[in-house]
Amino acid sequence: MSKPIAQSASVQSSFFRLRELMREEDLGAVVVGPGAGFFHLLGRSANLTERLVALIVTHKDAAIIVPRLQAPLYEHLPLETLVWDEHEDPTAILCSFLCEHGLRSVGINREFWSGFLVGMQAHAPEISFKTAAALDLMRVIKSPEEVEALARAAHRIDGVWNQFLEDHPVLTDKTELELRAAIRALMQKAGFNPVAWIDVGAGENSASSLHHSSAYVIRSGDPVVCDFAGALDGWYADTCRVASAGTPEQDYLDAYSVLLEAQEATFQTIRPGVLASAPDEAARAVLTDAGYGEAFTHRVGHGIGRDAHEEPYLVQGSELRLAVGMVMSNEPGIYLPGRWGMRVEDIVALTSDGPVRLNQTSRSIAVQG
Amino acid sequence: MSKPIAQSASVQSSFFRLRELMREEDLGAVVVGPGAGFFHLLGRSANLTERLVALIVTHKDAAIIVPRLQAPLYEHLPLETLVWDEHEDPTAILCSFLCEHGLRSVGINREFWSGFLVGMQAHAPEISFKTAAALDLMRVIKSPEEVEALARAAHRIDGVWNQFLEDHPVLTDKTELELRAAIRALMQKAGFNPVAWIDVGAGENSASSLHHSSAYVIRSGDPVVCDFAGALDGWYADTCRVASAGTPEQDYLDAYSVLLEAQEATFQTIRPGVLASAPDEAARAVLTDAGYGEAFTHRVGHGIGRDAHEEPYLVQGSELRLAVGMVMSNEPGIYLPGRWGMRVEDIVALTSDGPVRLNQTSRSIAVQG
Repeated sequence: MSKPIAQSASVQSSFFRLRELMREEDLGAVVVGPGAGFFHLLGRSANLTERLVALIVTHKDAAIIVPRLQAPLYEHLPLETLVWDEHEDPTAILCSFLCEHGLRSVGINREFWSGFLVGMQAHAPEISFKTAAALDLMRVIKSPEEVEALARAAHRIDGVWNQFLEDHPVLTDKTELELRAAIRALMQKAGFNPVAWIDVGAGENSASSLHHSSAYVIRSGDPVVCDFAGALDGWYADTCRVASAGTPEQDYLDAYSVLLEAQEATFQTIRPGVLASAPDEAARAVLTDAGYGEAFTHRVGHGIGRDAHEEPYLVQGSELRLAVGMVMSNEPGIYLPGRWGMRVEDIVALTSDGPVRLNQTSRSIAVQG
Repeated sequence: MSKPIAQSASVQSSFFRLRELMREEDLGAVVVGPGAGFFHLLGRSANLTERLVALIVTHKDAAIIVPRLQAPLYEHLPLETLVWDEHEDPTAILCSFLCEHGLRSVGINREFWSGFLVGMQAHAPEISFKTAAALDLMRVIKSPEEVEALARAAHRIDGVWNQFLEDHPVLTDKTELELRAAIRALMQKAGFNPVAWIDVGAGENSASSLHHSSAYVIRSGDPVVCDFAGALDGWYADTCRVASAGTPEQDYLDAYSVLLEAQEATFQTIRPGVLASAPDEAARAVLTDAGYGEAFTHRVGHGIGRDAHEEPYLVQGSELRLAVGMVMSNEPGIYLPGRWGMRVEDIVALTSDGPVRLNQTSRSIAVQG
């Protein structure tokens, strides 16, 4: 009844790795809705909407559940297909499948819609549903080809930043929104699709790490913090650099030196076998020593790959250990509300030769006019 | 401790309506993550990421839970704010709040990430979490101003289609991807943000209702089905029209007449007090009589507003009754795999004078060169 997964070697090894991890978590199956995990396993994306689409992977079989109108999109895949009609409850059909296979412990992806999960819990109270760490961990070690793809994306986003600086010798009197639009146009021209975010914060706005941009008009002396990300051929790039309209105040320059020192300390901590919390502690130690401990309000980094944010999260309390093949951001920040903020971000690959920065634009403040 | 919600009259009435609906569902609170409901209640959007952000509405209070780095974005809102640090488990903090308020029955939005729900279920096993229909129903009746905003969005997307036809007198030898890019550029120029989707299916590809577009080169006689949607100032527009490269075959023209007849039958069924399943039945009856029952593989429509797809869903089995102020799509389709497909879609507002089409471009096949 079920057909074998007979695709590329990389897809085969993805399923193999996933099943190993499922065994460690004692999961009989995983249900994977649209998202990076779905893409990783099937090599194609699906729309995340009110119509349930999910890949189901057991230790022996794999199936996909799709609404009838989407069935033609999946019919070429070597998977058992469960098709539901618009008037049917797809969670009931999915639970019948899980129960027929005698499953009792089923993992789901984090992004799976709660509306579907609540339906499944009602239809199959005998099944324990949990978030599958396996779906995070199957992607956490990148192959050399995957690291190469991430390096290409990083190189491409570096080109965007360099071009942006060349196009904008003067930042004074521009608005954050204008600069954001300029970066967006360069990202699109460079082939990023989707452009995930572009946050431009100038002056006091730089003190919020998630200020997206506004009509604020940049004044001489303002720092301009630019954080932007997007996917190139399905692999994410993400960087943050600081420019300024003229030379910033001395206190800003002093703090920026501390920030670079924190970033370097983090970089040196990214070694195989180290807890993923260690790089965060390294940055926090430097910033705390300089009196900026409270002003560093977020984790120092996140993994990156098929998703913009994924494991390994470089955060206090993480029990994951870093290993060769992991790729992550290194982005300490200092935020002083009402005054200014700063952040510098590179993507770092942990290779057998140690950590390697994939972003290579200058980390100095880009002093423009 | 908690501050009153003292914002615009429309926001106040949104909270009032939500609480009425919560009472009907016997919900003590709702937890609303980023999405159309969050936007509707707060007048601003939030990023849907691995960092938990949610609005919590009880019958007396409202609060918001946010990660520390995002707190500056919300500090101006008159809400109690629960701030979590990166090393903390936000679902534990959220559950403490719910338990301190003695809540036992809590609603969540459908799109809420399962990863968070599973965490909440573990921290507060005494609370029953369910999908809150209240969050769908609070938006289902549009005010006259909201209908006006949806009409503006529809008018704007109609302009995109007319301009597209004017720019492309000849479709033969173009690829679906080229046409998609042209529609995207026009959507962006017209101010749609985000552009939600643009599906262009020509020839046999038109037989899949969710074919997004490909490098297929359009041949003379091919139908070209174009379905596109996006938000204008936060309100969605969505339309589907059929063009053709030269005159299509007679069987296609004959079927298209039936399709228009089905759409008109649906339109006439959109009346106050009628079940939301009735318009679907009306389309299905016309198409079945003509032998196309099996070829109509999806529901006839969906509500539209702050979200591209929302209640009322015009689908078999719906127990919702239509009422003045509801706005929905009317989009029957016929799909014959290996041959061709067709769909025509208008947005319809149910007013006190009956149903009104918000889209006004010609529904005839646009025969181009």
